[in-house]
Formats: sequence, structure tokens, C-alpha cells
Amino acid sequence: MHYFLENVPERTQKPREKGFTMVMDKGLSVRQAEDFLSVGANHVDIIKLGWATSYVTANLQDKLNVYRAAGIPFYFGGTLFEAFAVRNQFDDYRKLLDKFQVPFAEVSDGSVEMDHDKKCEYITELSKQVTVLSEVGSKDEEKIIPPYKWIELMQKELDAGAWKVIGEAREGGNVGLFRSSGEVRSGLVQEILTKIPFERIIWEAPQKAQQVYFIKLVGANVNLGNIAPEELIPLETIRLGLRGDTFNHFLDK
Amino acid sequence: MHYFLENVPERTQKPREKGFTMVMDKGLSVRQAEDFLSVGANHVDIIKLGWATSYVTANLQDKLNVYRAAGIPFYFGGTLFEAFAVRNQFDDYRKLLDKFQVPFAEVSDGSVEMDHDKKCEYITELSKQVTVLSEVGSKDEEKIIPPYKWIELMQKELDAGAWKVIGEAREGGNVGLFRSSGEVRSGLVQEILTKIPFERIIWEAPQKAQQVYFIKLVGANVNLGNIAPEELIPLETIRLGLRGDTFNHFLDK
Amino acid sequence: MHYFLENVPERTQKPREKGFTMVMDKGLSVRQAEDFLSVGANHVDIIKLGWATSYVTANLQDKLNVYRAAGIPFYFGGTLFEAFAVRNQFDDYRKLLDKFQVPFAEVSDGSVEMDHDKKCEYITELSKQVTVLSEVGSKDEEKIIPPYKWIELMQKELDAGAWKVIGEAREGGNVGLFRSSGEVRSGLVQEILTKIPFERIIWEAPQKAQQVYFIKLVGANVNLGNIAPEELIPLETIRLGLRGDTFNHFLDK
Repeated sequence: MHYFLENVPERTQKPREKGFTMVMDKGLSVRQAEDFLSVGANHVDIIKLGWATSYVTANLQDKLNVYRAAGIPFYFGGTLFEAFAVRNQFDDYRKLLDKFQVPFAEVSDGSVEMDHDKKCEYITELSKQVTVLSEVGSKDEEKIIPPYKWIELMQKELDAGAWKVIGEAREGGNVGLFRSSGEVRSGLVQEILTKIPFERIIWEAPQKAQQVYFIKLVGANVNLGNIAPEELIPLETIRLGLRGDTFNHFLDK
Repeated sequence: MHYFLENVPERTQKPREKGFTMVMDKGLSVRQAEDFLSVGANHVDIIKLGWATSYVTANLQDKLNVYRAAGIPFYFGGTLFEAFAVRNQFDDYRKLLDKFQVPFAEVSDGSVEMDHDKKCEYITELSKQVTVLSEVGSKDEEKIIPPYKWIELMQKELDAGAWKVIGEAREGGNVGLFRSSGEVRSGLVQEILTKIPFERIIWEAPQKAQQVYFIKLVGANVNLGNIAPEELIPLETIRLGLRGDTFNHFLDK
Repeated sequence: MHYFLENVPERTQKPREKGFTMVMDKGLSVRQAEDFLSVGANHVDIIKLGWATSYVTANLQDKLNVYRAAGIPFYFGGTLFEAFAVRNQFDDYRKLLDKFQVPFAEVSDGSVEMDHDKKCEYITELSKQVTVLSEVGSKDEEKIIPPYKWIELMQKELDAGAWKVIGEAREGGNVGLFRSSGEVRSGLVQEILTKIPFERIIWEAPQKAQQVYFIKLVGANVNLGNIAPEELIPLETIRLGLRGDTFNHFLDK
């Protein structure tokens, strides 16, 4: 902050349990990773290497070193976990996390059919090795999970050892928590919040209107994910009531 | 220009009064700022640090030095002015402009209710210190200002000391001059042009179809704003009739 | 590849006749060009300097040197060819290719009316100098070419000397092969594939759903073009069944 404005919402500081921002890297170069950190490292809490992009990027180790040097944890997207699990290569996945010293892992079932007890076993097993984020919601826009079921799944995954649970949206923000138009399933979100503490949830919200929805509903310090690197600074202004969308929301309070 | 094509529309040269391009920087790194200048510095006339993004970027002073060294003026988005004004911190805003040696300022009321005489006073007051751009139009898609009123507001703001007036569109191009679909309010635009000289107006036009509309209506040397850095080169080709959208428009003349 | 997954579709290796990816550069800086190559050079087969962007970029020669050093061929978009042709400056165009040592050229008629025999003459003439890609389809969304005509045009252009033919889509993916909504004209595509070998076609497919369509229809090694640099890695994961969209498609086989 280079200057001072009065009456701006107070933000949590790192390491954050809430007010947490997860950025999605879907194939950045080393320089591009350095670039977004040079502008907003203080606003990023964790970086996801989107789905299985790490499988095909030539610069993986060097880029992880950049994130490590910045003190920002990172993890492989859940689709990579699923790709190993569905091939019965779970042990290879565990070795992979060790090889690259990855501090977090995501357990998801967005693309595969997986028995929920089995999913919870993966969570429990992996949480002995790394910090686990688990994800609820399908990548298939046809699969609608009713609210009571979302809550049950989230609670069981937290009980199994997940540090936080993620609400699925994909890079596009058009499945899971959202309709295919990007509109928030607000009944779903509000019902989840009656049962699961907001600090334990990361809402994937790549679209601006989605971010605004959660910030107005939960507050400046809601946990949000799937933020594109170039949207990190815009998101921070929305959290602080310094963009048109939330300008009056926070002033009125 | 590395080669020569005949019968391409003539472009104005810097410093431009018309044919002016305003690029929006919503949180670039120093390297990213250098990058777009290395490709098209000659096509950029002014850079806006979008809304209040400067409040949360870690690299502000270094980046302004890059723009300064390139001889390209810059200013803070109108929302930052409004954030100071609504908190009765206008004097702090003036000091901020001095501290960072910012040569331009935008006076807007896109997010606040502001008496128009008061807005004009801000314009007059700030124009003693910097060159003022004033902006007409709300960021609220529900607020529709009729054409005669746009004209009256624009004229008063120019009379109060604004160098040019900006037509509001936001980063998305979906309010003010445009419907929420992005469609141009063409009756509005054409009525404004019967009363305000086109050189005095900067049209925010982030979407390609919007840029094409204004270039076809006003010509290659219309003033356009809210251009994303990666759209600077594409815009220049549209101005020159070297993209499909205006290819035949200029050839036919 | 930093780790091993079983049962992933086999990809062709460079120099590729099929499984080919064409990236569109619409005004990258030298550093940005280096950046995407540092992550995925092995997945890029050719780079198009989109339409006539090369006319207005300040860094043309330096950037071409980057591509040349990486061993990746490049060419100017078809609109530049058309801009020269329509001005009766075809000889200047040929000199331009020599001056910049451009190894490929695109012959298209997306923005101009051109007699098809004349277009084929250009193809034949240019193929004495460079490798020619020819493009079928209009940039005008109102101009619908029936499938039998697409096939006839494509076949004649291949016969005239084109190495491969490109199906038009523009940067946006909303003309030619696609409806203005981006939806694939699937009847057209499937009819073309009954007559023209898939290795000889490059499908412009800038949108993810379009890429997924072609990969599911033709396979991992379909030729795709107009890929934005930041979508190169995501595309490669879709080809390999490592993104949600094709995850089960390839597993089921």
C-alpha cells in the first residue's frame, strides 16, 4: 500500500485461514510466475498447477523453485490425482509428491466415479504425507448434486482429514457451484454455509460476478480459488471495496 | 512499419489530440509493462492504472518509472478519485498525485452520487495541478442517462476545465455507452457527436466490435480507451483497415 | 514429461504431419515469445503472426529471430497476403517473404472477393518460393459456403500446391467452420472428412469446446490452429485425455 484510505475492510494476514486466495497456474513460464508475484505475492496464499498441466510443461522444477523461494505453497490439480488413481498408480502419485516436494495435494472426483468411502480413504492416507484439500462437485454440467448431499460430502471429507474443502467450478466457472451460464447456485451456497464454517471452504470463483457474489455474501475475507494470475489484483480491490462492484457495499456498513 | 502498403488510412502522430489510444493497466508487472511498450509504444498515448488497482500493487513506483522513461503519461482510474472524495480525503488525493508525479487525473462519479456542480469544482480545482480527464456515465447498468443529459454533462465538464471527456464502459464494456450485452447505444453516441467535437471525447471501448463501431463511424483517428495491453496491436490494425472487420471499409473509400 | 502415466494417447513427434498445433501470435513481445516457448516449444509446430499485426509491431525482426532459433517455422496471416493482393502489390509481398526469410505463406480470401482460379494461381506461384498453406472460408459470418463447395475448394487448392488447407474460424472462432455462437457446423466438418484426408487439414479452433470436438472426432493427433499462446499447454492436456473434457473419452478406449 503506497497511500492510505480510511475505512477500508480489514484483511487477514499470512498465513491466512480465511481471506485466502488460490491462484490457478495453467502453464506459466518462470518469468510469468515471477511477474505476478512481483505485483501481488502478498495477496496469494496458494498456487494450483491446474488439472494435469504439470504433465506437459517443460519448466516444472524451475517454476516450483520460484514459488518455493517466494514462500507460497503449491499443489497439482485434482485431475492429476484422478489420472493416477484411475490407472491404479496411486503409489506413483505419492512418490511424485515426494520427488517434487509438493506440500499440498488435492483429492477430487470431478471426472471419475469414485466410491465416497474410497475417496475419504485417499484423503486420510494422503494427509499423513501432505496437507490435503478435497474437492466436491462434478466437472460434468449434467451432474447436479443436491445441497444436503454437498454438505454431507464436505463434512465427511473434513472428518477424513481434509484441511479445507473446495467447491468445484472449473477454470470457466460453469459447473458445480454455478449453472452453465456462470450464474451462482445461490440456494446451494447459502445452505452449505448453514452447516460448514466458511473458513473451511474455498469457493472456486473464476468470474468477476462470482467473486463479487461471495464477497458480498460472506465478506472481504472469504476464501476464493481458481483466480487467474491477471485477476489477482482486481480481486484484491473487490475485497477492499475499491472497485465499482463492491464500492458502496462496504461504505454503507 | 517494416514494409509498405499503399492506401492505408493516415494516422495522427504523437502528441495526438485525436487518434488517441488509452491502454488500461490493471496490475501489470514492470516486465509486462516493458513488454507491451516494446511492441507498440508508438501506438499508446496514455495509460490508465485501472480503478484503484494502484492501491494494492507492490511495484507502483517502479512501473511508473517505466512509463515515465517511455514518455507516456499515466493516471489513476476515476474510482480511486471517488474513493478519496467519498471519504473526505480529497486533499490526500492531491498530495498523492504530487508524491508520484502523476501528470493526469480522472474525475468521475461512476460509483458515487455526486452533485454535478461539486464534480465540476473538482475538475476546476484539479486542473490547476494536472491535466484533467472527466468521465460521464454510471458503472451501474440500471442507471440510464438520456442523451441530452450526457451532452449537457460533457459540455459542463469541458467548460470546467477537462481536457477531454471519457464515455464510461468499464473494463467489460457493458455499461454506460453500451447495453449489458456489449451492444453500442448508437443513438446516444450519434447524438453526442452532433454536439461535442469528436476530438474532445475518449470512448471506452474494450470489446473488438465496439472499437470497430467507432472506427467505422468516426474514422481511423477516433479516440479510444480501456484497451487491454494485448489488444493494442490488434486495435492499431483495425484503425488501418488491416483486419477483416474494417478491411473493406477503408478500401471502398 | 516429468513423470509417467500409463495409457495416455500416443502423440506424434516433430516434424509433425498430423497432431500439429499452430499458435497465433497477435503482437507478442520478444520476451513473451520466449516465455511460451520455454514452457511448450515441443508442442508448437508453426506460428502464425495473426492477420496483418506484423505491419504495426515494432519488434518484428527480433521476434522472428527467436522463433528461428527455436527451430519453429512461422508465417504471416492470410489477411496480409490479401492486403497486398488487393492493392496489386503481390510482387512486394513476395519480396517481403524473402526479406524476412519467411518459410511459409498463407493464401486466403477471407476478406476479399477473389476468383478461385486466380487464388489457385497465387498458391502455385507462391509454392515455388515457400511452403503454402491455403485457407477456405469467409470472415463474414453472413457468407455460408455449402459443404460440397468447401470440399471442391479444398481439393483444388491442394492440387494447386498447398501443403495443407486451413478451415477458417478467425481469432474468435465464430465464422467459417462455426456458427456465430461458436458452435461447430458438425455436418460440414464430417462431410469434409469423408473426402479430404485429415492430415491435410488444419482446423482453426480457438475455443476449448471446439478443440474438444475435433479431438473427440478425429483423435489426439488432429491438426489444430489459432491456438492462443496461453492455451497451448491446456490444449496438449486435452489431446492426452488429461483434462476433464476428454478424460473419459480416451480411458474408455
